[in-house]
Amino acid sequence: GFARVDHDREARNGVPEVIFGEGKRVEQISAIVARLRARHQRALVTRLDTERAEHVLRDHPDGQYDPVSRLLRWGEAPERLPGRVAVICAGTSDLPVAEEASQTLEWLGVEVARLNDVGVAGLDRLLAHREAITHADVLIVVAGMEGALPSVVTGLVRSPVLAVPTSVGYGASLQGVTALLGMLSACATGMSVVNIDNGFGAAWQAASILGL
Amino acid sequence: GFARVDHDREARNGVPEVIFGEGKRVEQISAIVARLRARHQRALVTRLDTERAEHVLRDHPDGQYDPVSRLLRWGEAPERLPGRVAVICAGTSDLPVAEEASQTLEWLGVEVARLNDVGVAGLDRLLAHREAITHADVLIVVAGMEGALPSVVTGLVRSPVLAVPTSVGYGASLQGVTALLGMLSACATGMSVVNIDNGFGAAWQAASILGL
Amino acid sequence: GFARVDHDREARNGVPEVIFGEGKRVEQISAIVARLRARHQRALVTRLDTERAEHVLRDHPDGQYDPVSRLLRWGEAPERLPGRVAVICAGTSDLPVAEEASQTLEWLGVEVARLNDVGVAGLDRLLAHREAITHADVLIVVAGMEGALPSVVTGLVRSPVLAVPTSVGYGASLQGVTALLGMLSACATGMSVVNIDNGFGAAWQAASILGL
Amino acid sequence: GFARVDHDREARNGVPEVIFGEGKRVEQISAIVARLRARHQRALVTRLDTERAEHVLRDHPDGQYDPVSRLLRWGEAPERLPGRVAVICAGTSDLPVAEEASQTLEWLGVEVARLNDVGVAGLDRLLAHREAITHADVLIVVAGMEGALPSVVTGLVRSPVLAVPTSVGYGASLQGVTALLGMLSACATGMSVVNIDNGFGAAWQAASILGL
Amino acid sequence: GFARVDHDREARNGVPEVIFGEGKRVEQISAIVARLRARHQRALVTRLDTERAEHVLRDHPDGQYDPVSRLLRWGEAPERLPGRVAVICAGTSDLPVAEEASQTLEWLGVEVARLNDVGVAGLDRLLAHREAITHADVLIVVAGMEGALPSVVTGLVRSPVLAVPTSVGYGASLQGVTALLGMLSACATGMSVVNIDNGFGAAWQAASILGL
Amino acid sequence: GFARVDHDREARNGVPEVIFGEGKRVEQISAIVARLRARHQRALVTRLDTERAEHVLRDHPDGQYDPVSRLLRWGEAPERLPGRVAVICAGTSDLPVAEEASQTLEWLGVEVARLNDVGVAGLDRLLAHREAITHADVLIVVAGMEGALPSVVTGLVRSPVLAVPTSVGYGASLQGVTALLGMLSACATGMSVVNIDNGFGAAWQAASILGL
Amino acid sequence: GFARVDHDREARNGVPEVIFGEGKRVEQISAIVARLRARHQRALVTRLDTERAEHVLRDHPDGQYDPVSRLLRWGEAPERLPGRVAVICAGTSDLPVAEEASQTLEWLGVEVARLNDVGVAGLDRLLAHREAITHADVLIVVAGMEGALPSVVTGLVRSPVLAVPTSVGYGASLQGVTALLGMLSACATGMSVVNIDNGFGAAWQAASILGL
Amino acid sequence: GFARVDHDREARNGVPEVIFGEGKRVEQISAIVARLRARHQRALVTRLDTERAEHVLRDHPDGQYDPVSRLLRWGEAPERLPGRVAVICAGTSDLPVAEEASQTLEWLGVEVARLNDVGVAGLDRLLAHREAITHADVLIVVAGMEGALPSVVTGLVRSPVLAVPTSVGYGASLQGVTALLGMLSACATGMSVVNIDNGFGAAWQAASILGL
Ligand SMILES: Nc1ncnc2c1ncn2[C@@H]1O[C@H](COP(=O)(O)O)[C@@H](O)[C@H]1O
Ligand SMILES: Nc1ncnc2c1ncn2[C@@H]1O[C@H](COP(=O)(O)O)[C@@H](O)[C@H]1O
Ligand SMILES: Nc1ncnc2c1ncn2[C@@H]1O[C@H](COP(=O)(O)O)[C@@H](O)[C@H]1O
Ligand SMILES: Nc1ncnc2c1ncn2[C@@H]1O[C@H](COP(=O)(O)O)[C@@H](O)[C@H]1O
Ligand SMILES: [Mg+2]
Ligand SMILES: [Mg+2]
Ligand SMILES: [Mg+2]
Ligand SMILES: [Mg+2]
Ligand SMILES: [Mg+2]
Ligand SMILES: [Mg+2]
Ligand SMILES: [Mg+2]
Ligand SMILES: [Mg+2]
Repeated sequence: GFARVDHDREARNGVPEVIFGEGKRVEQISAIVARLRARHQRALVTRLDTERAEHVLRDHPDGQYDPVSRLLRWGEAPERLPGRVAVICAGTSDLPVAEEASQTLEWLGVEVARLNDVGVAGLDRLLAHREAITHADVLIVVAGMEGALPSVVTGLVRSPVLAVPTSVGYGASLQGVTALLGMLSACATGMSVVNIDNGFGAAWQAASILGL
Repeated sequence: GFARVDHDREARNGVPEVIFGEGKRVEQISAIVARLRARHQRALVTRLDTERAEHVLRDHPDGQYDPVSRLLRWGEAPERLPGRVAVICAGTSDLPVAEEASQTLEWLGVEVARLNDVGVAGLDRLLAHREAITHADVLIVVAGMEGALPSVVTGLVRSPVLAVPTSVGYGASLQGVTALLGMLSACATGMSVVNIDNGFGAAWQAASILGL
Repeated sequence: GFARVDHDREARNGVPEVIFGEGKRVEQISAIVARLRARHQRALVTRLDTERAEHVLRDHPDGQYDPVSRLLRWGEAPERLPGRVAVICAGTSDLPVAEEASQTLEWLGVEVARLNDVGVAGLDRLLAHREAITHADVLIVVAGMEGALPSVVTGLVRSPVLAVPTSVGYGASLQGVTALLGMLSACATGMSVVNIDNGFGAAWQAASILGL
Repeated sequence: GFARVDHDREARNGVPEVIFGEGKRVEQISAIVARLRARHQRALVTRLDTERAEHVLRDHPDGQYDPVSRLLRWGEAPERLPGRVAVICAGTSDLPVAEEASQTLEWLGVEVARLNDVGVAGLDRLLAHREAITHADVLIVVAGMEGALPSVVTGLVRSPVLAVPTSVGYGASLQGVTALLGMLSACATGMSVVNIDNGFGAAWQAASILGL
Repeated sequence: GFARVDHDREARNGVPEVIFGEGKRVEQISAIVARLRARHQRALVTRLDTERAEHVLRDHPDGQYDPVSRLLRWGEAPERLPGRVAVICAGTSDLPVAEEASQTLEWLGVEVARLNDVGVAGLDRLLAHREAITHADVLIVVAGMEGALPSVVTGLVRSPVLAVPTSVGYGASLQGVTALLGMLSACATGMSVVNIDNGFGAAWQAASILGL
Repeated sequence: GFARVDHDREARNGVPEVIFGEGKRVEQISAIVARLRARHQRALVTRLDTERAEHVLRDHPDGQYDPVSRLLRWGEAPERLPGRVAVICAGTSDLPVAEEASQTLEWLGVEVARLNDVGVAGLDRLLAHREAITHADVLIVVAGMEGALPSVVTGLVRSPVLAVPTSVGYGASLQGVTALLGMLSACATGMSVVNIDNGFGAAWQAASILGL
Repeated sequence: GFARVDHDREARNGVPEVIFGEGKRVEQISAIVARLRARHQRALVTRLDTERAEHVLRDHPDGQYDPVSRLLRWGEAPERLPGRVAVICAGTSDLPVAEEASQTLEWLGVEVARLNDVGVAGLDRLLAHREAITHADVLIVVAGMEGALPSVVTGLVRSPVLAVPTSVGYGASLQGVTALLGMLSACATGMSVVNIDNGFGAAWQAASILGL
Repeated sequence: GFARVDHDREARNGVPEVIFGEGKRVEQISAIVARLRARHQRALVTRLDTERAEHVLRDHPDGQYDPVSRLLRWGEAPERLPGRVAVICAGTSDLPVAEEASQTLEWLGVEVARLNDVGVAGLDRLLAHREAITHADVLIVVAGMEGALPSVVTGLVRSPVLAVPTSVGYGASLQGVTALLGMLSACATGMSVVNIDNGFGAAWQAASILGL
């Protein structure tokens, strides 16, 4: 067969395998979803465009699709994880990635606090929430262009920060590579980085820190 | 003055500022160490070559310098953090970076379990420790060349994995950039990445996860 | 004329010239196919999209087109080569490239064993076939994202491994460049690499090893 | 002759040509300095290492060499320019570049206010000087690693900011390229960028803004 | 809410926040425009394509959209700034970026003198305006391909030059990266650089120099 | 006006300015063509797609458009240049670029000998024309992918070779950058290089060598 | 311990683990050599400079060190493999890499035929050996700069070609990256590629093809 | 033997093979020089450092070594070529490359006119020689940093221009890559490009144009 679903993953990693939606045909996705739901009662597809999502929903109509985060999901976490994750985002254009993180967290059973549009060009917007951010258990910080926000946030808190570069920007932003390299080069301590636009991966790592 | 020591950092981040040893002159380092020790009773300098370390030790002779990790340190953590971090390394050539991580963890008060030379070209070496690695609270996985080890380890455990690419290799390794990009591209979930050769940063993030 | 078919290639290389389908107009392809079939009774076009394939099939209706591998072919190898090639692929999204390899091998007269969706994030899926892969005469290993699968496979076998990076992934995957560089940097021995998405080239090299 | 001194430059650009010290032999520099001093009574050499500076000083002993900024200079500006430039630097390791800027400004007749070691990982150090920085006429902001400081400063002031990336850092810092690209990608408005480590160029542009 | 309008920006930076049009949905833009106009009586959206501009204009019909510069704006500067900015452009293909600069300047209340199509391959076209360009207070020089025009212009004037690389060109132009790197490497003094195609940023920096 | 036609160019460079068709609107092209034809009786537009070409031809219906080379032209060279240029191309997919070179040469009044599809994978095809190529006065060699053909040709002849990399290929070909870098790195002597896909530039340089 | 020798490798891969000499200290190498020789009676260290080789030889004086290939070895293959490998090299500057391949092959028990300095700029040197190269069982082709030789050789033979790019060259050669990318982009079929300067890896793959 | 001197090259290319001095040992160079001089009475070694040059001169003491151009040569061209080449260089730091070009031309029997230090930041220095440069038969233009000089020169003349980028500069100059890409992107017509710092290659191409 074309796919070999890794059913042991729930045992090993705490959660069933998630389907990477890019480059798969609709029938492939539907078939994998069927197998996952039969075994684990829940399923998640990432990076799925609206058109293909609608096709998959014909086979599995009780799923929820969100066009901003491009997530398609069924079921939910059997139990909620302790702790709270702050998902902070630099600009309105970074929202799709921040939502991919927030909604993946919710599907994984984690409580989320969203803080949008607090980029470093208007620092007072962030500082107004200084109290709140120092109390999150994990922080996911999403930023495109020069990607400076995670360094600034990391300097303000003790909890671990997960930095997510986005492909927002143009020219020297190099589709997110500049933000990615900047976050990796940051001298602020207590921060690690995931792939460009990978809100999903940051959410999973946050849940893993909270004891997935 | 040339340096503005960020004394509040211990309050904000849980640990005093650490000195980045590259590109600083010996007198600058000595002066900053003096200020840090006066205030916090401990200090750490990273990425310091043997020659300059010896000069700094003339002013502060009770420090410990390790030429493998290139760390120079004084004092220790006031209390030990709960939990254990596994520091896993792919090849003997990656040891300096793994040691930077392990010894920073020790300075931060964290218990370390080292597992060396278990690269993916001889998978059985790693699988022989499968039990052990699934019980670590955080895993730091250090690898150069193609940097495949963190994906494999992440697939085997539930705890968060911090991947550290190293500059070991030649040609297409591009001084660690290939390992870095590979780790960021990994589809294994529960993994985040720090800068090339940044054992220090991974250690700090691990400590931060354990509740620094 | 616009094309100078290299008819001696069958004598020199064992197989007639194959047509690179990108950047050629339909009439050009049809004309070259006509000349090749007249002389060698078989022809193969690679990287051809469905629309142009249908146009070429109007002139040469007895061909077979497969939309997954994007191969269009006529005729078959006059005799079968000894030995067996395992075509192993990391994820469902890498299937088109793996199929380009498998079907090219079949057109060249080589027996293929397919093993799909055994990426390193769920290692047990691969290890379950450990016996089988150690008996292939040549292995083609197809992987995108961080491209770690070929290193792992090469460490398990004696036969030569041909690694094929794919453009599957996003962000730091850099359209397959990351997987390519990773495979070239691998310290596993007994492995060589072809271009990104070049299942065709890997198949040919495998056949050449089996004595094309 | 090997050099064609651009004597009209003082008329056109307001200041005589400055000698780029890299890749020139000592005798070449000495000869150009002689011609410049004969005509303009002042001269400046940039990016000159200590050893070659000492050789040039044998021919022109009344010059001043500073090993931190690597500038060698004779004479001074005939008159002082109105206004004040703040030269702000992120970390102690960035000092050489900041000093190249400050001392070039002084040679050009501009008043300088230095603010060192106020990087974004400890934001309060910068905010403590918020009042001061909003009153500078031009700001030069020097930072390596992820280069986030200029965005933050630009967001706090009305005056033009000149951002100078430095080659401080390692791995993903790519010898300053990451800081450079980050500064160019910044969404803060009222900022422009010069080459990596080019404190000299930023100083000149600042002076030009003040009416050189 | 999805956006946190930085209303203090007018106080801090002299002008209200400007909306980056890429990656935002029409309703988001309309809502932000409404808030900005309510508070500041003017608003500017950059990098907006015709289709989305028409949608936004349904909610705010008194705006002006220019398809060349892709700017959508309402209102104007409360007062005009002293001085004049020359906007010089190398080729007809660079006009959209030059117009983004010129029209942003006009919206900011600055007088503009346009000089188009004076690239270095026909130097006499530029030299014919030598007198004029030496009298501008600030010069914005826009060029794609090899991006040589700013160096040449900077060598002719005393006033500060702001160089804007464009993505015009093909092959080795690398979507503007070549022009960008060339401008940063220029040895002409009195020049600083903004992002590829960032006519908006250059305009703002020019206005800031004139005392925004 | 938006364009400043460089009418002196015919005097300086021997031929009137040629219009770069990318990124210009149809009306702009038509207007420039009108001015050029009024003054010089001929005009050439490069890199023009079929759709815009048809629009321009409505205003100037006596032009000739070739969809392969994407050239649109009016008039011809007042006199023919002495000598003959061989335009050699590696594969059928490189034909558009080779035709851009050949037809530009014809418009410039130069005699062309075409030799197509003689790439290095079937060396005998080239060697069959060894005599012919040694007698050309200038050789333009067009190749994509690894771009090896110009080195081989240069090793066989005394006349100057102009190498033109093309964007044909995929993956590691990097849209022609690999062929470009390869040609620049070639150790064969008597060869120089133009931009990727720049058949036009090679043709002009060839004509310039023949005494334009 | 610092190293975990993969003793099973001889069983799995046919030959004991080989020591990567870069980045290891002399005592580490000596200790690993001791363990390998005790178990397998032979050992090989690659990429070892003369100075460290001499230190290791003090502990293991019966080894052979070759400063050209930088290989240090003890013992030999228990039996010879059938078949012959041609090691072909483009220029005298590529000899160190070609020798790393040839001498590794000899250590692995494979017969080698060397053919040096037959780069494509003087094609007749290669064609003079056309007969010979068509009879090798595997061909290793070593080339720097533009790396065109493997394409040409592959076009002439049926046996598999292993291409080794070298770091020979300057400027656009990018330390071997250009040759690497060129070889990967080659349209010749029956060729695969190893890392820059990796003569060792090519030798191993050749031996693996011959049935290691 | 290690080297296969291409003695036919004089017949094919008009001049005997030239020795690339990098990466060769002194004895290898001496041996090749001996063979070349025995057959052709002249020899040239490029890119040779002073130390190794002195060693080679012990075996062949009648040679001439120039430390600026790093050329070592014996004998001279049997006859002088018609025509004159202008070698123009942007800054004093580019002199070594310009001299490599000039002295290679002299060795090839070509008359050279040198014009140094006429970079575009002081355009009048170049324009003062406008008459002279329009009369050269071929122009070699050498420039580092942004590499703008060749475009400007090409716009002023009819004769072919050969552009040589140099590695002079720092930061964004990327060791000459920026100048190289800029020259390739130039819109001036009648120009082609050689490798970074390749004065030798430009000289040979110029001689080839003059009828080598
Ligand atoms: N958006 C995403 N980014 C990175 N990895 C993902 C994403 N979505 C799913 N995955 C991972 O991709 C793997 C599944 O790949 P596949 O077999 O191609 O569906 C699983 O390991 C997932 O955890
Ligand atoms: N090896 C290292 N890698 C990254 N950051 C570091 C390293 N060592 C120290 N730092 C950070 O660098 C900052 C100090 O920089 P500086 O003021 O230049 O000494 C502190 O925030 C440290 O946490
Ligand atoms: N550190 C520097 N960075 C950039 N340009 C410089 C620097 N120092 C001097 N220059 C410029 O370099 C040019 C002189 O170059 P040269 O003729 O090679 O000495 C003058 O235009 C200077 O303004
Ligand atoms: N020159 C080389 N290039 C690539 N891989 C090598 C080289 N030399 C040894 N290796 C491999 O590196 C691994 C040993 O790495 P280490 O444990 O660091 O000594 C083994 O798998 C070897 O096959
Ligand atoms: Mg905002
Ligand atoms: Mg090992
Ligand atoms: Mg899968
Ligand atoms: Mg500091
Ligand atoms: Mg024009
Ligand atoms: Mg062909
Ligand atoms: Mg040779
Ligand atoms: Mg100069």
